[in-house]
Amino acid sequence: MKITYENKVLSKNDRIAAEVRRHLTARGIFAVNLIGSPGSGKTSLVERTAAWCHGRVAAAALTGDQATCHDADRIERSGIPAIQITTGNECHLNAQRILDCVARDELWDIELLLIENVGNLICPAAYDLGEASKVAILSVPEGDDKPLKYPGLFKRADLMVISKIDLLGSNDFEADRAEANAREVAPHIEVVRLSCRTGEGLEGWTRWLASQLVQTAPLTARQA
Amino acid sequence: MKITYENKVLSKNDRIAAEVRRHLTARGIFAVNLIGSPGSGKTSLVERTAAWCHGRVAAAALTGDQATCHDADRIERSGIPAIQITTGNECHLNAQRILDCVARDELWDIELLLIENVGNLICPAAYDLGEASKVAILSVPEGDDKPLKYPGLFKRADLMVISKIDLLGSNDFEADRAEANAREVAPHIEVVRLSCRTGEGLEGWTRWLASQLVQTAPLTARQA
Repeated sequence: MKITYENKVLSKNDRIAAEVRRHLTARGIFAVNLIGSPGSGKTSLVERTAAWCHGRVAAAALTGDQATCHDADRIERSGIPAIQITTGNECHLNAQRILDCVARDELWDIELLLIENVGNLICPAAYDLGEASKVAILSVPEGDDKPLKYPGLFKRADLMVISKIDLLGSNDFEADRAEANAREVAPHIEVVRLSCRTGEGLEGWTRWLASQLVQTAPLTARQA
Repeated sequence: MKITYENKVLSKNDRIAAEVRRHLTARGIFAVNLIGSPGSGKTSLVERTAAWCHGRVAAAALTGDQATCHDADRIERSGIPAIQITTGNECHLNAQRILDCVARDELWDIELLLIENVGNLICPAAYDLGEASKVAILSVPEGDDKPLKYPGLFKRADLMVISKIDLLGSNDFEADRAEANAREVAPHIEVVRLSCRTGEGLEGWTRWLASQLVQTAPLTARQA
């Protein structure tokens, strides 16, 4: 019975996600769903990305938390519009939350939509938001075994970002082992290693983003 | 409709949790439910606790993960029996999982049961496992704002462990601010600060555990 109920919720979510995807695709918006533990560095990555976007790419962010508007405030200060989605008891964003936002002014003329999910390595992975890509964020302090222990997210992600590499050496995290563990459960996954604190490795992330943006741009823009 | 279904699941869980609690109380076992993000240091804390228990307290551990038996293997090497509970798609332990274990040999003659929940700051907080206390673990790399962003757990916890204090100074985490944030949502909460890597502050944790154990011991033992 539980499975039936979950399937029903997920299939309703999938229909709404398909609608979100139609909206975004028609408008040439590349949407990325950033998923990671609390404190893995999702907001910092959005801030760094906002700075890179300046003068290059029109971007906006949606950011989910159970409570507070801290993240949206932080992101707005880095120069792109941000809408906070407060989920209350819910441990993940769902497609309806995104659909409620897609027609808002802040998202109208953008090319890149950064969706920062609720801090949680598990539940958000099961909900399609209509995004083009899921990105898994794994920070060095969490340990390099997490892809094996929480495989669901890594299987569904196109990219794993190893964040906080400035903390390498503070524990027994080995980036090569983290990559090998991720590829054991998700052979297709791409990996970038970076530190939002020092800026090291950010070019790997922005290169990946740029390549996705080129593929997503509407035909008219690409011909121009 | 969703709320009705969730209430039904939780009320069934509550009935089973009450049964677990009767078992544990009758046998004078203090059970603590350790909840924190992936990589917040739950397993390390169980390992350190196991070492402290040696010759003092008969203890065992139950440890939950979506996949792998790594944690139980680690804990067993530190000298107490450990049972791995693999949850598959589930993002939290529930009371039935504990009830399935309470009659097992490994848990028979113990005084302390350490339950390491699935790494997740959100969902595990909603499920009573029949424990005597919930403990929230917040590691320095996660940031000191997490009690405000994920208040549910901190409201239900008796104690917050600030872990990985050897990493203080590597980011803008301030332990005083973390405590203030926790007390803003949970005025009753006790706090200890520690590092399982260096051992600093562990006596605060073992002192708290010892005081709980004294209160939990069966009357016969206390009179002896």
